[in-house]
Amino acid sequence: MQVPSGSLLADAALQAGFSLNQPCGGQGRCGRCAVRIDDARSAIRRRSTLRLSKEDVAAGYALACQTVIEGDAWVEVPEQETIERRLVTQKAARRIELPFDYDVARHQSVRRYFLWLDSPSLADQTDDWSRISRALAGEGVQEISAALPVLQGIGRTLRDADWHVTAIVSLDSWDYPQGPARLLALLPGDQSDCSYGAAVDIGTTTVTVWVVDLLRGEVAGQAADYNGQIVRGEDVISRIIYAGKGNNLAEMQALVVGTINRLLEAACTQAGTAPDQVFKVAIAGNTTMIHLLLAIPPEAIRLAPYVPAVNQAPVLTAADLGLVAHPQAVVDCLPGVASYVGADISAGVLSTQMDEAEDLTLFIDIGTNGETVLGTHDWLITCACSAGPAFEGAGVEHGMRATTGAIEEVWVNSGDGEPTYRVIGRLGERPRGICGSGLLSLLAELFITGVMDKRGNLNLDLPPGPDGRRRVREGAHGPEYVVAWGEESAHGRDIVLSKIDIDNLMRAKAAIYAGFNMMAQSVGVDLADVSQMLIGGSFGQYINVEKAVQIGLLPDLPAPPGSASPWDRFHFMGNTAIRGAYMALLRRDARARLTDIVGKMTYLELSADNSFYDAFTSALFLPHTDMSRFPSVEATLAARADALQAAGT
Amino acid sequence: MQVPSGSLLADAALQAGFSLNQPCGGQGRCGRCAVRIDDARSAIRRRSTLRLSKEDVAAGYALACQTVIEGDAWVEVPEQETIERRLVTQKAARRIELPFDYDVARHQSVRRYFLWLDSPSLADQTDDWSRISRALAGEGVQEISAALPVLQGIGRTLRDADWHVTAIVSLDSWDYPQGPARLLALLPGDQSDCSYGAAVDIGTTTVTVWVVDLLRGEVAGQAADYNGQIVRGEDVISRIIYAGKGNNLAEMQALVVGTINRLLEAACTQAGTAPDQVFKVAIAGNTTMIHLLLAIPPEAIRLAPYVPAVNQAPVLTAADLGLVAHPQAVVDCLPGVASYVGADISAGVLSTQMDEAEDLTLFIDIGTNGETVLGTHDWLITCACSAGPAFEGAGVEHGMRATTGAIEEVWVNSGDGEPTYRVIGRLGERPRGICGSGLLSLLAELFITGVMDKRGNLNLDLPPGPDGRRRVREGAHGPEYVVAWGEESAHGRDIVLSKIDIDNLMRAKAAIYAGFNMMAQSVGVDLADVSQMLIGGSFGQYINVEKAVQIGLLPDLPAPPGSASPWDRFHFMGNTAIRGAYMALLRRDARARLTDIVGKMTYLELSADNSFYDAFTSALFLPHTDMSRFPSVEATLAARADALQAAGT
Repeated sequence: MQVPSGSLLADAALQAGFSLNQPCGGQGRCGRCAVRIDDARSAIRRRSTLRLSKEDVAAGYALACQTVIEGDAWVEVPEQETIERRLVTQKAARRIELPFDYDVARHQSVRRYFLWLDSPSLADQTDDWSRISRALAGEGVQEISAALPVLQGIGRTLRDADWHVTAIVSLDSWDYPQGPARLLALLPGDQSDCSYGAAVDIGTTTVTVWVVDLLRGEVAGQAADYNGQIVRGEDVISRIIYAGKGNNLAEMQALVVGTINRLLEAACTQAGTAPDQVFKVAIAGNTTMIHLLLAIPPEAIRLAPYVPAVNQAPVLTAADLGLVAHPQAVVDCLPGVASYVGADISAGVLSTQMDEAEDLTLFIDIGTNGETVLGTHDWLITCACSAGPAFEGAGVEHGMRATTGAIEEVWVNSGDGEPTYRVIGRLGERPRGICGSGLLSLLAELFITGVMDKRGNLNLDLPPGPDGRRRVREGAHGPEYVVAWGEESAHGRDIVLSKIDIDNLMRAKAAIYAGFNMMAQSVGVDLADVSQMLIGGSFGQYINVEKAVQIGLLPDLPAPPGSASPWDRFHFMGNTAIRGAYMALLRRDARARLTDIVGKMTYLELSADNSFYDAFTSALFLPHTDMSRFPSVEATLAARADALQAAGT
Repeated sequence: MQVPSGSLLADAALQAGFSLNQPCGGQGRCGRCAVRIDDARSAIRRRSTLRLSKEDVAAGYALACQTVIEGDAWVEVPEQETIERRLVTQKAARRIELPFDYDVARHQSVRRYFLWLDSPSLADQTDDWSRISRALAGEGVQEISAALPVLQGIGRTLRDADWHVTAIVSLDSWDYPQGPARLLALLPGDQSDCSYGAAVDIGTTTVTVWVVDLLRGEVAGQAADYNGQIVRGEDVISRIIYAGKGNNLAEMQALVVGTINRLLEAACTQAGTAPDQVFKVAIAGNTTMIHLLLAIPPEAIRLAPYVPAVNQAPVLTAADLGLVAHPQAVVDCLPGVASYVGADISAGVLSTQMDEAEDLTLFIDIGTNGETVLGTHDWLITCACSAGPAFEGAGVEHGMRATTGAIEEVWVNSGDGEPTYRVIGRLGERPRGICGSGLLSLLAELFITGVMDKRGNLNLDLPPGPDGRRRVREGAHGPEYVVAWGEESAHGRDIVLSKIDIDNLMRAKAAIYAGFNMMAQSVGVDLADVSQMLIGGSFGQYINVEKAVQIGLLPDLPAPPGSASPWDRFHFMGNTAIRGAYMALLRRDARARLTDIVGKMTYLELSADNSFYDAFTSALFLPHTDMSRFPSVEATLAARADALQAAGT
């Protein structure tokens, strides 16, 4: 193939049909797009070889995203790591509880009306459209409008169906609450006995789709899978960078639309319907995900002063986005608050109903951005903590996602520092790495057992284990703790946690706690007064609260009145974003309530606040420099010291 | 090329790139799509050969629209008659008078605002869209919405233009008068010193475009041309039939959009602007033309009970239709009343202001359908008279359109019946046929001079002329009157008016007058009480009122008070449809007024009224069976009889 001189090798490869993985979005940072050049016969220029060793370069390796073609080039593309596809459709899905007493006539905006029209005559030459409007007025739908494609079809449908038709109507106007209803489709005969919608959560990593029976309000099909954009960047920043080049924005849109469409088809099959029967779609997602879905350039999101193009997108149709729902389906992207507090968080507030909470509530969606919200029914404050992806297994040498082979929990023996761990998978599954919940519990265990001090320094003096090998040793990048020996692991290499990994994890937890602290401080409340702590996000479901408190990731709260356990204050909410989208799908008033929520949420820009750095560095200890904030951890440590002393005596 | 067996030859020809003329819309009636088949080598079937002689068929001729391909076929396509292109851009155009005292701030809905925005900072992270909304609120635009393509562009425009931008806003909402304004585009810098719109009239024959300076309200460019659909049918019925087959509806839409686009470009060039600077388009046209423009199937328009899909289309964008105006330009198709009283007529009522007339007013758009409106500011009644195209030169053997070579006026010598005529074109132009105004004056002259009686019978006893030849003679299809001898004509053949032609013209004028009569009768007024008669349509401009009254096409009205001439009651309005579109383009309140007008107009379906046939047959005389309705004609005839008698004495 031919490309203009000066083209990037990555672009040329894409044009030639090779889809190279670019988890860093083409920044030359991850090294995953390496290809091999026959340098003797090729005229290319390596702009950067950051992730390649001298030996790699000598062997001809080059980063496709950092290599410019300047003449003929002979390129060998290695087989690409494929993202493990994990399309999940739950046949016997967990039954999702209806979040309120649903009444289609009262709550639902997309309705079906069977109309038995008078046929026209020379005495009644009313045009087809006015005839439909007149009949709908008889059903209480006073004003109605329709898009051109609907009008193009009405004449034939009316006549083919002998004037007996089902009108599918969105009672809510396009862009104005008091405006006319919209006729979305006219179907022949009586098809008023079913009605479907879809709730969608576009996560940076995972996209979730629920197909909902709008007559009963029940979830009838569920499906989830990796976001197809993941090959173009694992985090939002990488994706924004990738989307900023050439025609990549359109590609990013196509990738996520493709994922949603596949999931819609799967969930519809499960629900016993078809995507073109879906007439309403409510979509949650962070601000970058919504921008990419709508092909709105997201670049300003990553650059100071971090301003999105739009926090509240207009209502669209499925046809506008290329979704496989009915082309006229109402697509409502829920509103966000800021570049780093998006619709996923406002949907979370909606679904947890913290905007109606009587008592002080703290909500966190644990993830890369650590979005948190603090408040009551009176006020809400929010911030994004830029925790980084350490708790998702990235930036940690043996980190991985929570899939088969991941160590998900670790216990450390307080006597000799020897670990025990649990691996995701079948019985006897060998570990390949450590996922977020495993890292969190490992960190807490190492600290509480004294294998590591409060600054995160590993105790190099820890005595050798029963087999004579040292768990804490000096590794290639400083001190490291061996969680699993090579003979136990799936790949034969030791699985370790290094000081560098520990520092990354400490920074992540410190950022989140500092965020809590800043919010509380800015409104003048005490974190210890938090009445309930709501934990959202898929990672959130797997963390051990006690250990999260021990490392100072979550605040140390007293037991609630009438309860012996402080853990009663912590509630795992699961995917609050999809639940919020589900609420928005069911209730006409949800959009107004969401508008109210985002209007009420004060966004705290941590990078603009000089005291954030102090709060952050104070939290760079286990659990915190100020131990009085963590009385239960202090008590645990004291008890352990007593026990050690007693044992030593 | 290959087509499936059973394909129509006309469709196969189109696929092969031969665009055959089909003025009858593919009904096999006009014979204009004849091609020549090598029958010996071809497997085809002629479904109909209606317009072909036995000799034609023997020579291999076949009608492409009526011939089915059943195997290999060898076809010779004769050179097609080309429609004379007459793209008219009037460099020194007739200055169109502003119809009222225009004030852009008060009347115009599409406005430009130069905005000097605060740039964002960490202290003000308002998203781009809300920042624009806030600035527009400062200009008095309280609520605003935008389509996705606009939102996709705002971020880069704002930054490239350093936050100094021009917002182009439609103050009117999409589908609801009280809804939010719409941001149509955001342009860099200050571009508030110009603003353009376009008024369009889609005639069945001619499309007219005016490009209007929306700041001053003045017409800045004008262009007109044949409707590109004319090769697919000369009248609305032929086009509806053609559009009903295969994918022809899309072709018809593309043809008229292509015509409008060419005219928009020409008119914009004349106005010193470009089509993408046009942000508002108001379109008038009959109901079939509007359906075809919107690709809404028009078939029910031609079948009893003659019901259109929609009389009032929703507001669209240029992108919806493929117009070359700015993609987000507001496209407003004006509302119609019924299948045969369309937006061209309601626009006519708007532009003539007959909806505000104190006295009884009669309005007619003389053309194939003879749409007429009778009424005052209190009430309006309307009907379509199905006059047929005789006065446009069709259905008349030597009829033609009003172009070069057409006889446009005829005088007949009352003594010997010898004619004098005027031909359109340069001095000495030889006649090729007779156009509508020529036919009308010829009919009147033959009647008044007694060459023809009141039943339209030619006087075969008329003595020979000075050269011994008879002007009235027995022709191939009955008696005929020779207007021009072969040696005078451009083609060397005699130009005649036959009894068949006369009958067609009589039926046309009878249909129109019967329509007037029915309307007057149904509301209980007398036609003689009509205070003003408004004549619209391009043909209307060229007719001689006196002669039109003499044949009974227009009612015989008394002179108005203070005037000696009854002609003072007749007003030629020109193209009232384009003027109505121009008004709608300038005035925000025009749409509401048009809605009021179409709501007020009672449509009289003549085919549903048994007394119409009586009214029609009574009008099949010159001028009418009831001479008391035509006192001035009666007086003229009496004066002539007296003169003859005096001469005879």
